[in-house]
Amino acid sequence: MVNDKRVYLFDSTLRDGAQSQGVDFSVSDKLAIATALDRLGVDYVEGGWPGANPTDDAFFADPPHFENSRFVAFGMTRRPGRSPENDPGLSGLLNTSADAICMVGKTWDFHVDVALEIERSENVAMIADSVAHALTRKDEVMFDAEHFFDGYKSNPAFAMECLEAAHKAGARWVVLCDTNGGTLPDEVARIVATVCEKIPGSHVGIHCHNDTENAVANSLAAIRAGARQVQGTINGLGERCGNANLISLIASLMLKTDYDVGLDDAALKHLTPLSRLLDERLNQQPLRHSAYVGESAFAHKGGLHVSAVAKDPRTYEHIDPAVVGNQRHIVVSDQAGRSNILTRLAEIGIALDADDPGINKLVEQVKAREFEGFAYDGAEASFELLARRARGEVPNYFSLARFRIMDDRRWNARGELVTESEATVTLEVAGKAKMEVADGNGPVNALDTALRKALVPLYPQLKDMRLVDYKVRILTPQAGTRAVTRVMIESADSQGRRWATIGVSTNVIDASFNALHDGITWKLLQDGAEVPLEVAE
Amino acid sequence: MVNDKRVYLFDSTLRDGAQSQGVDFSVSDKLAIATALDRLGVDYVEGGWPGANPTDDAFFADPPHFENSRFVAFGMTRRPGRSPENDPGLSGLLNTSADAICMVGKTWDFHVDVALEIERSENVAMIADSVAHALTRKDEVMFDAEHFFDGYKSNPAFAMECLEAAHKAGARWVVLCDTNGGTLPDEVARIVATVCEKIPGSHVGIHCHNDTENAVANSLAAIRAGARQVQGTINGLGERCGNANLISLIASLMLKTDYDVGLDDAALKHLTPLSRLLDERLNQQPLRHSAYVGESAFAHKGGLHVSAVAKDPRTYEHIDPAVVGNQRHIVVSDQAGRSNILTRLAEIGIALDADDPGINKLVEQVKAREFEGFAYDGAEASFELLARRARGEVPNYFSLARFRIMDDRRWNARGELVTESEATVTLEVAGKAKMEVADGNGPVNALDTALRKALVPLYPQLKDMRLVDYKVRILTPQAGTRAVTRVMIESADSQGRRWATIGVSTNVIDASFNALHDGITWKLLQDGAEVPLEVAE
Repeated sequence: MVNDKRVYLFDSTLRDGAQSQGVDFSVSDKLAIATALDRLGVDYVEGGWPGANPTDDAFFADPPHFENSRFVAFGMTRRPGRSPENDPGLSGLLNTSADAICMVGKTWDFHVDVALEIERSENVAMIADSVAHALTRKDEVMFDAEHFFDGYKSNPAFAMECLEAAHKAGARWVVLCDTNGGTLPDEVARIVATVCEKIPGSHVGIHCHNDTENAVANSLAAIRAGARQVQGTINGLGERCGNANLISLIASLMLKTDYDVGLDDAALKHLTPLSRLLDERLNQQPLRHSAYVGESAFAHKGGLHVSAVAKDPRTYEHIDPAVVGNQRHIVVSDQAGRSNILTRLAEIGIALDADDPGINKLVEQVKAREFEGFAYDGAEASFELLARRARGEVPNYFSLARFRIMDDRRWNARGELVTESEATVTLEVAGKAKMEVADGNGPVNALDTALRKALVPLYPQLKDMRLVDYKVRILTPQAGTRAVTRVMIESADSQGRRWATIGVSTNVIDASFNALHDGITWKLLQDGAEVPLEVAE
Repeated sequence: MVNDKRVYLFDSTLRDGAQSQGVDFSVSDKLAIATALDRLGVDYVEGGWPGANPTDDAFFADPPHFENSRFVAFGMTRRPGRSPENDPGLSGLLNTSADAICMVGKTWDFHVDVALEIERSENVAMIADSVAHALTRKDEVMFDAEHFFDGYKSNPAFAMECLEAAHKAGARWVVLCDTNGGTLPDEVARIVATVCEKIPGSHVGIHCHNDTENAVANSLAAIRAGARQVQGTINGLGERCGNANLISLIASLMLKTDYDVGLDDAALKHLTPLSRLLDERLNQQPLRHSAYVGESAFAHKGGLHVSAVAKDPRTYEHIDPAVVGNQRHIVVSDQAGRSNILTRLAEIGIALDADDPGINKLVEQVKAREFEGFAYDGAEASFELLARRARGEVPNYFSLARFRIMDDRRWNARGELVTESEATVTLEVAGKAKMEVADGNGPVNALDTALRKALVPLYPQLKDMRLVDYKVRILTPQAGTRAVTRVMIESADSQGRRWATIGVSTNVIDASFNALHDGITWKLLQDGAEVPLEVAE
């Protein structure tokens, strides 16, 4: 029996996603992402465009082994005036070991006339010839109908002629691309329904861009109108405003419709880690407000909401965050009431009675520090330390007596311009002074290196801790006060933990030290480190 | 004659937007944003919740003067078991000078039972009483039906009873809120259409959240189904995943449908500056990939796209970027072909012939520098300097002979822990050495201050230049090479120009100096500064 609710997932992160401004995947990035997509179990993973750049050539020359997904190579139909057999681009595409081929061609008369400047009949022949030729080498070929919606609105007969040429030549899928991203959902629904009257929906795909912020909605509308393949990218990566976000599509299709995307509940839980993996590979901060997987997607800030969520999470959550691998997040902020603080404390394992006088004190302390420029919204580890310090639970692992940092840029003896940063720190541990010096690639790095040099012999747990993100923000000076700098540091260790700490000061180095101090202290506290009784001089 | 295509715009940036994680508007932020919204001409500006926090109290105590918009105060219906006359929250709301009142109440039986724990009939009475009472004091009252879609799916009769209570009591609008943001567009369309059979669409509003990435699509679906007021926020600001983005809605409604939102083409051009204004007030980088107004929304990176856009922009642009106040952006990057570079050069006023040998040299240079870690995607001013330096058009305004920076944290004589940063620079201008020293709130600030102290007497143009953003990124070290730091600096001047420059080095201070050097040089070049012939010692 045919499952007419089965929707096939096609990921284009490594091809269309690579077109984004600021994105530059290495071969090892591509390997890591392709492997994660295969593990998730999407039907198709488009790896890139062999022949277009050295990265894609190297990736296709030595592709990963796929357990679940079909590996797709992207390219163009043959050039005008050539036979498909004699087209070097097409040959390069067919010579890879990809399981399937996705070929793009024109379907908008305006593009054929203005961009290609060829006869329209030649455009149709290019599509038919190329698909037929590719099928002599690969068992699955699909056709990306570029600008299909603009084409259909301009000249429906010609757009359909192009599409049917691909379908009749044996394309497994004809994919309707809203290349410029300007089509609204009601138009997508109407046009896809018309296409599905001529070509069965089980052969029709949809590829949307987010230029009107409707890429996900357009994809859903196309599926409801009959399309059964959906193309998109992780986190909606893609040129201009991005492609349809597969993360949101997978979650909505599985949790809110009766369509079947071929994945199970265990896969769904991978969506949040997969989204974060891509950001890590791109070395960028995850967007907090992303649907389903963002850190703020299940964050509650207003006091009224927080107390209702404490009674029953369904009051202000459309799904259980755990089903997509995400988690609830009670925000500690200036607007925070007692219930936020109580809930946050319970999360980190501090069970306090609602009328414990410590709560009010902590609320006051958070408000006072936020007034100084602290922001505990994103620095959960510093908040935990604040709460535990108030309860006397944090040992004084070390304190800083002084530091002195020097950055020197000058011409050296060989006539080269060199810059050196050097930090000297004097710490106090268990009543003894400990002095160390280190150089680094800048003042904060030198300071961090000197600190660790002094501390690792006493606390070997710190060996596997590393700094993964460092952010500086100059806070708008209030009238009459000096500008304040806020430093946020994210640290990680080999156990896969990541934690964020914050430091505020009028001096950026000072603020950095405070954030480093909290970061190191949190790690030592988690690992149950003890202050040494004896410290060698 | 009634215009049945008129859709009323309701902005909630200052109320629901303020619920976002990390957002903390000051009173002056609220004034600036409200004034910009009034200038744009939206129908309603919701200013906040008087009585909920000191900021909103201060804002409502001394509100801006509105030329075009109605000023709305938000609050709750009366509490259970009180008369509206004796409800202090309601009185506070009605005592402000707001033109209109927006009152939220429950319509989901589950919420009435679990969160409020009151009789359902009392909930209906709270709505009717509060609206009727508010109308004795204000000529326009609207009702926000919290969780309406979840409520309607759970118990349609009760949800409609609540809604009709507000409508019959005289509410100008009943606004259907998808509070948890979990409803998909087809459901929104179906439910709004059913509501509009009972309550005329000209009295029905829609308020969506972005938890499935469909807030804009849901709003459009509701309008097509009959709703005639749409609520949203600038840039989609709002708790969790945000509210419906009014920027995208206004642009799509005006440019792609026959609905009338009461704004003209001149207003449409304000969308991009309005979007950027909000980010500036929030002190955050604008999202590059935002629909319509993002810096990347009309960016072209792939070589094929760039050459087609050069022939006719409609080939890869769904609208003319200028109509929303945005602009085309040709990205210079590793993937850049000759046509990208040519187009970028033309944009900055360098007209080169397509086969000028200088082009290939520049392409090679960009590729080589990107390999070192430079990224010209976002540092347009540094790209311009690179191109102009290759043509010998950039004077050597100053060069750096050496610098020495010291950061010192120690206990001072009064027992306070103080940190001082001090920079000494030796510059060379017109063959003469110039030495200066300055302190600052960190090493880069001290360096920047010393540089300016040395340069302003020679180049007074630099007086009105300031550093507005400073970003540091540690680049993933390649195997066998040392980690490299990339610094991006954004500068601004009093003429409203903003420009970004980049510096790369193994040392962060060095990289910062390089970016500062480019920033200062670009400003001097734009202002046509000349290198002084004589420099006093």
